[in-house]
Amino acid sequence: MPRVVTFGEAMLRLSPPGRRRIEQAASLDVWPAGSELNVAIGLARLGWSASWVSRLPRNPLGRLIEAHARANRVETASVTWADDTRLGLYFVEVAEPPRPTTALYDRAGSAFATLDPTELDWPELLEGVDAFHVSGITPALSKACATATEEALAAARAAGCHTSYDVNFRTRLTTPEDAARQVERLAPHLDAVLCSNRDAHALFGLDEPDELRDRLASPLVVLSSREQRVAVGDTTEVIRRRTYEAVDPIGAGDAFCAGFLDSLLNGVGLRIALERGETMSALKLTIPGDAPLISPGEVETLLTDRPVGVDR
Amino acid sequence: MPRVVTFGEAMLRLSPPGRRRIEQAASLDVWPAGSELNVAIGLARLGWSASWVSRLPRNPLGRLIEAHARANRVETASVTWADDTRLGLYFVEVAEPPRPTTALYDRAGSAFATLDPTELDWPELLEGVDAFHVSGITPALSKACATATEEALAAARAAGCHTSYDVNFRTRLTTPEDAARQVERLAPHLDAVLCSNRDAHALFGLDEPDELRDRLASPLVVLSSREQRVAVGDTTEVIRRRTYEAVDPIGAGDAFCAGFLDSLLNGVGLRIALERGETMSALKLTIPGDAPLISPGEVETLLTDRPVGVDR
Amino acid sequence: MPRVVTFGEAMLRLSPPGRRRIEQAASLDVWPAGSELNVAIGLARLGWSASWVSRLPRNPLGRLIEAHARANRVETASVTWADDTRLGLYFVEVAEPPRPTTALYDRAGSAFATLDPTELDWPELLEGVDAFHVSGITPALSKACATATEEALAAARAAGCHTSYDVNFRTRLTTPEDAARQVERLAPHLDAVLCSNRDAHALFGLDEPDELRDRLASPLVVLSSREQRVAVGDTTEVIRRRTYEAVDPIGAGDAFCAGFLDSLLNGVGLRIALERGETMSALKLTIPGDAPLISPGEVETLLTDRPVGVDR
Amino acid sequence: MPRVVTFGEAMLRLSPPGRRRIEQAASLDVWPAGSELNVAIGLARLGWSASWVSRLPRNPLGRLIEAHARANRVETASVTWADDTRLGLYFVEVAEPPRPTTALYDRAGSAFATLDPTELDWPELLEGVDAFHVSGITPALSKACATATEEALAAARAAGCHTSYDVNFRTRLTTPEDAARQVERLAPHLDAVLCSNRDAHALFGLDEPDELRDRLASPLVVLSSREQRVAVGDTTEVIRRRTYEAVDPIGAGDAFCAGFLDSLLNGVGLRIALERGETMSALKLTIPGDAPLISPGEVETLLTDRPVGVDR
Amino acid sequence: MPRVVTFGEAMLRLSPPGRRRIEQAASLDVWPAGSELNVAIGLARLGWSASWVSRLPRNPLGRLIEAHARANRVETASVTWADDTRLGLYFVEVAEPPRPTTALYDRAGSAFATLDPTELDWPELLEGVDAFHVSGITPALSKACATATEEALAAARAAGCHTSYDVNFRTRLTTPEDAARQVERLAPHLDAVLCSNRDAHALFGLDEPDELRDRLASPLVVLSSREQRVAVGDTTEVIRRRTYEAVDPIGAGDAFCAGFLDSLLNGVGLRIALERGETMSALKLTIPGDAPLISPGEVETLLTDRPVGVDR
Amino acid sequence: MPRVVTFGEAMLRLSPPGRRRIEQAASLDVWPAGSELNVAIGLARLGWSASWVSRLPRNPLGRLIEAHARANRVETASVTWADDTRLGLYFVEVAEPPRPTTALYDRAGSAFATLDPTELDWPELLEGVDAFHVSGITPALSKACATATEEALAAARAAGCHTSYDVNFRTRLTTPEDAARQVERLAPHLDAVLCSNRDAHALFGLDEPDELRDRLASPLVVLSSREQRVAVGDTTEVIRRRTYEAVDPIGAGDAFCAGFLDSLLNGVGLRIALERGETMSALKLTIPGDAPLISPGEVETLLTDRPVGVDR
Repeated sequence: MPRVVTFGEAMLRLSPPGRRRIEQAASLDVWPAGSELNVAIGLARLGWSASWVSRLPRNPLGRLIEAHARANRVETASVTWADDTRLGLYFVEVAEPPRPTTALYDRAGSAFATLDPTELDWPELLEGVDAFHVSGITPALSKACATATEEALAAARAAGCHTSYDVNFRTRLTTPEDAARQVERLAPHLDAVLCSNRDAHALFGLDEPDELRDRLASPLVVLSSREQRVAVGDTTEVIRRRTYEAVDPIGAGDAFCAGFLDSLLNGVGLRIALERGETMSALKLTIPGDAPLISPGEVETLLTDRPVGVDR
Repeated sequence: MPRVVTFGEAMLRLSPPGRRRIEQAASLDVWPAGSELNVAIGLARLGWSASWVSRLPRNPLGRLIEAHARANRVETASVTWADDTRLGLYFVEVAEPPRPTTALYDRAGSAFATLDPTELDWPELLEGVDAFHVSGITPALSKACATATEEALAAARAAGCHTSYDVNFRTRLTTPEDAARQVERLAPHLDAVLCSNRDAHALFGLDEPDELRDRLASPLVVLSSREQRVAVGDTTEVIRRRTYEAVDPIGAGDAFCAGFLDSLLNGVGLRIALERGETMSALKLTIPGDAPLISPGEVETLLTDRPVGVDR
Repeated sequence: MPRVVTFGEAMLRLSPPGRRRIEQAASLDVWPAGSELNVAIGLARLGWSASWVSRLPRNPLGRLIEAHARANRVETASVTWADDTRLGLYFVEVAEPPRPTTALYDRAGSAFATLDPTELDWPELLEGVDAFHVSGITPALSKACATATEEALAAARAAGCHTSYDVNFRTRLTTPEDAARQVERLAPHLDAVLCSNRDAHALFGLDEPDELRDRLASPLVVLSSREQRVAVGDTTEVIRRRTYEAVDPIGAGDAFCAGFLDSLLNGVGLRIALERGETMSALKLTIPGDAPLISPGEVETLLTDRPVGVDR
Repeated sequence: MPRVVTFGEAMLRLSPPGRRRIEQAASLDVWPAGSELNVAIGLARLGWSASWVSRLPRNPLGRLIEAHARANRVETASVTWADDTRLGLYFVEVAEPPRPTTALYDRAGSAFATLDPTELDWPELLEGVDAFHVSGITPALSKACATATEEALAAARAAGCHTSYDVNFRTRLTTPEDAARQVERLAPHLDAVLCSNRDAHALFGLDEPDELRDRLASPLVVLSSREQRVAVGDTTEVIRRRTYEAVDPIGAGDAFCAGFLDSLLNGVGLRIALERGETMSALKLTIPGDAPLISPGEVETLLTDRPVGVDR
Repeated sequence: MPRVVTFGEAMLRLSPPGRRRIEQAASLDVWPAGSELNVAIGLARLGWSASWVSRLPRNPLGRLIEAHARANRVETASVTWADDTRLGLYFVEVAEPPRPTTALYDRAGSAFATLDPTELDWPELLEGVDAFHVSGITPALSKACATATEEALAAARAAGCHTSYDVNFRTRLTTPEDAARQVERLAPHLDAVLCSNRDAHALFGLDEPDELRDRLASPLVVLSSREQRVAVGDTTEVIRRRTYEAVDPIGAGDAFCAGFLDSLLNGVGLRIALERGETMSALKLTIPGDAPLISPGEVETLLTDRPVGVDR
Repeated sequence: MPRVVTFGEAMLRLSPPGRRRIEQAASLDVWPAGSELNVAIGLARLGWSASWVSRLPRNPLGRLIEAHARANRVETASVTWADDTRLGLYFVEVAEPPRPTTALYDRAGSAFATLDPTELDWPELLEGVDAFHVSGITPALSKACATATEEALAAARAAGCHTSYDVNFRTRLTTPEDAARQVERLAPHLDAVLCSNRDAHALFGLDEPDELRDRLASPLVVLSSREQRVAVGDTTEVIRRRTYEAVDPIGAGDAFCAGFLDSLLNGVGLRIALERGETMSALKLTIPGDAPLISPGEVETLLTDRPVGVDR
């Protein structure tokens, strides 16, 4: 059972039911959210021992997040609790095309963003751990979070962990220039970089995966567009993506990460890792909420069989 | 800020949640409805000063409608209140293909249908107004409503308002012959006539927009089919329609009207008016309920950009 | 008004709302279910006098099923009531592609499965009846149920009823070998056999409808695949199937049965029977829950007209 | 199994969930309603063969009512179906004290109110029937309904049925004077009159049950106040009422009627009839909606035992 | 139609449905909230021309609040809109005794708290206004808000407005000492001070209304405890309070304010003002959400009549 | 942090929302349930290290239970997973007085009831554990469960654990005679016996707590009636119970157990243990579902303060 640690903020997502607009909402559905928590859940459900390092407010909303992590087998002993802070929130209108799904973030001043990097003893947190994962959201949250991210990655490398980084550029948190600088600063610590084509273009003006690998001098780069996923390491692997209608479009990238990392670290090869990641991503799109509530059996069935209809 | 007045009935739409049939309903979702109210809301949200002339029963249902109009920035000072009457209702089963969405109307004897035309002082109601809009539903509701519609249009012309008329033929209210006669009687007062291909065929046996323009001697005719929208004035403009799956198929025509009139009266030209109207219509289909709860920014984004996925 | 009797178990289906997974459910929607009950409801709504022979637990869940049958005009006087037993349940996650809809059955020890065949006086139950229908689920439930099914079919034949059998193979209840043997044992009593291509292949290794007809020496065989429905009697009729997105994929086969049998027994010919059955099936897919809550008018409209959009 | 026929209108009650006001409603709960239908359901559930004579619109709302009646074992063969009419509606805000529960009726022009009395063949409808029940709502709905009520009661008496009448004065339908005249006109046909103290005072200025019995020359009068129920026939019986908090205050009088009539016609004596009726009424108050969904066992348990807490 | 201006923050209240704990919530009900907005709504519904001065974020949540105000006839032209800020939120668990209803505030950094006092032109905002109302929450939100409150009250006095202040001490926002100092600083500008016994004790160590009046040198003081409401001006008036079970305990004080001020400024005398306020408060407790959605007729009916049961 | 192990079955409770009857349900609320799981959750939330020994079916329903336990900090490593079995279910109608809340059990053949006692290595499961708790439901489920219960208690005593037993007599599972024999057989292993007055009477014909203590030769007996709780050990302590309206009446006894055991094992004395238990029980009644989702702070606040109203 490999061990992974992820590091990032959790938020509560609030969405009106039934494709309503926020202004039409008489109630909001409640979904725990957070990119690195999602990856931890995805890996835990694939059989990993997953631990999530974060900071939560000591109130019912913080406890709701913790219960969600624990219910999904993610270890929460490394979560610290803060008084007099808040849980980050975001309000999402899930929409059908051509209306875009939109997110309204309300995450400033969260318990996580105001963490104190000196309180995180990374060598201890990473002892015996096989992989460390973080996304570009974490360093973009605050200066303290950026410091903590860099220290975490350095410590992970020192401890012999595999390190992965999902660029996850958020225009509400940072600028393309700052995000690019952040990736470049962290790149020397990274074994794998995952990035969408859109972010590669916005941050680096690059459209080709090997260009990004060279630019970052990264051993492994995965680049995703709406049409394909490409992984570039020693060899280049490309898979086509199928499109399905999304029940919930959020969290598909995190699900891909979990599936990809699980396969990669189990040594099955780049192509299969891409396919497993893609399958996790496709399954996530059928599940409401942010978290990849997926089991290994479902991934295998879909990879081998593509069953349709009713299983009974 | 241009000023518009619309004139028509509001109803309460009651629909089972989640694609249920009415006979399966343990609850019904509640949506304020009404073609001319929808147009007023659409224009108000695009920045117009919009006033809605109507008649409501003095009871909680009437107040629910008024609150909906006010919440959406539509002025309700011209609404009159009636004792001992009722609010029109309609029960809608929103269905996926191949089952048609069906409407069961229960609107007879409503406060609006039983209005007294002599109580409406149109010159006063239309003072300083730039545009007046009504649909063919209003004159079809009762003799009194037909009289009021004609008086309103005559007064609007006299006051120098732009006048527009959406044919909106309803088989439950009138016959094709009566509806055709109604359009012809009103045509001399109209600056713009909007009509679906289906209604043009049913009422006049006409399939071409210029035929309809000539028949009605109307300065401007817009004809819509599932495939295209055509505007015929001095020039002819045609745009293709894209199809999307509808979250809610009702109210798309009213959203088109609002977008088209807004552009037309702002003098941007027929083609752009068609495109803006069509975009409003496409956005409406993604929104549950009857009303076009759309902002100008959403229309512009979609016109220029066609973003897909998640905006965050 | 022709008379039909169907014989089988009813269950309560419990499904999370809004495409949620079971583990995400804070509530479950409640749907009465059961293949033969669905067929009875479908026929009753098409104008038949339909009676359903079953066994229910004497508790609120049993009464909920009975109320559903009665509400849909199915006669329940032939239902017997059992103390100290249970209603069969199944938990369904309705999913969008590519995730399959999955069913978790919890039906062991139900009132129906533990019935006593000697308590069913088939000659009396079938007196004056025109048609008897049962599916392969019934004999698969228990030895007692298998005995009762065979006795029922023998009695139906003796009484001059038309007999039909929907193979409905369920891997959770039986093996392909046992299911095949069951069909072969019952075939001499059957006027019509309905079977999916998948079941025909799994049970008999056969892919062609006339092979199945010959193997079972059956007067009439209907074979369905995702692409077509084929009926083989004296002549062979084939119709293409259209695909629509399913609001609820369960119960489409039962809806087909009802539409097909109604037409067949009204003597309209195989091809029209296939088309009416297929239309019922397509309509069912738009309706949440298991039951074909369809009226004859809806079938006719769709057959002749394929209307789209909003009927108002 | 004694046989009862009741005669009256059914409506759909629409109520906001969770003690919301109508103006706060984003959805409305749906409850079939109607005093005489409620009595029929109450008696059917106590074991009677109950038939309900009414008139419904031929649309999904009418079918929803019929399904509710059938599901509760009430025979609907005597219901006639009307095209181009409507189902009566009422909107109820169920409130906690001190705010009163309020009803907004929208029942004018209903299928029932516009019935044609000559189409009702009362001798045939009442053949073999033991009891006929109607409330004062029915004759107040329209002149046609008043005629039909009087003919029904006369025919019932002629057929040897027990006849009962629940005064049920509704200020929205009639005046105290007209309602009083109506009762007096019908009184010669009545075996039992049920009336609230408030109605007795409003209609006749009477506060004592024996005064009302004498005034109407009625064999049996039941008078209810918040504190007690009194039955006056040859003897006078009085029972005290207990008060409980009401989950739903509507339909308690109908539940009382069903319990009282069941006992009275089974010859158990006035006092026990009052107690059974009162128990039915107390149970109804715990059940949302209008209908007395109560079983005989529940009545007996409460009468003998008054258990509290959890039955497991 | 007297004119009132209120000044304060609006928040969105999020509460789990059906007495659930937050950690049990799969959805949250949405209620617009804010003490001074509630008072404005209460007065607007009693017939006043009410305007609300506030600051909202330019996003869907801000628009949801504005729509709520407008729907309830509160003028929002004086609301300013802020980019890049947030709407204050609070999460409420409504509980039955003995568990207290608890609120978790998340209001820091809101658009309102970060307002700029120099942007508020109070003489213009208060021109032609009869009354100005604010609660102690407003000055406690930030230094800027405190400054604005004092300037508003000074301007109101200068403009001849009646000024009222509801102490509304919030432990999460300020200390008793700071709150007391705040009241004392503002007292010279105030015509009426409303205060709970608990706050009077916590802030001033006073338990008697005349002590508080003397301490603040205020023309009018209203002091409320669970048992009574006391108003002290030239005379002293005391009324007993009745207790009812609360559907929703929040907003009762604001409803009292609206009822009291309406009566006071209409010159009906202290005692009747107390009674009207108390009646508004009792009615509010029956309504879910924070706002006093009450009509004058409901207050009068309850004052004169105390009807119980069902109004139909 | 003391350590506790509890042993028992978990079920899924399915209840209609809003006080509906089961036959009125269009959806059912979902609540994980089980007496010993509830006690483990209660203790875990009070700060204990709690582990729950049970057996679950390997399907989504089993996983839903496990997630609930984990989310509430109960260790589930000792849960075993069974193929081809089921999760026990029960359907509850929560009712207001005078209608009793009723439970319909469907728990036969559950994964737990069919456990194999030889697979439970109690010395290992209880290593380092301070307390072991089980209720009378466990041995009543099957012979295998009875064997496992006795072995567990013997092993617990041998390991020096405190042992407690909540009689929890269930008429649907066993007879009074068998339940009494069961208690007597297990009594020599028990440090504490908790019993309701009703069960004491039904099983032993005893009404006094010291009689029961003597009969069972138990060091400590707690006896509860609606009016009081009595603990009898070396001394006798009696506390009066307050009554509140129950939001959900189920699970109050389990909450009492958790509160009582926590205090008892922390050595605070019998009286305080009774009071803490009673406070937990009173709080539980305000929480929907079966589980005592209570924090130590809430218990302390209520014990010292009895706050009422809104905490903000």
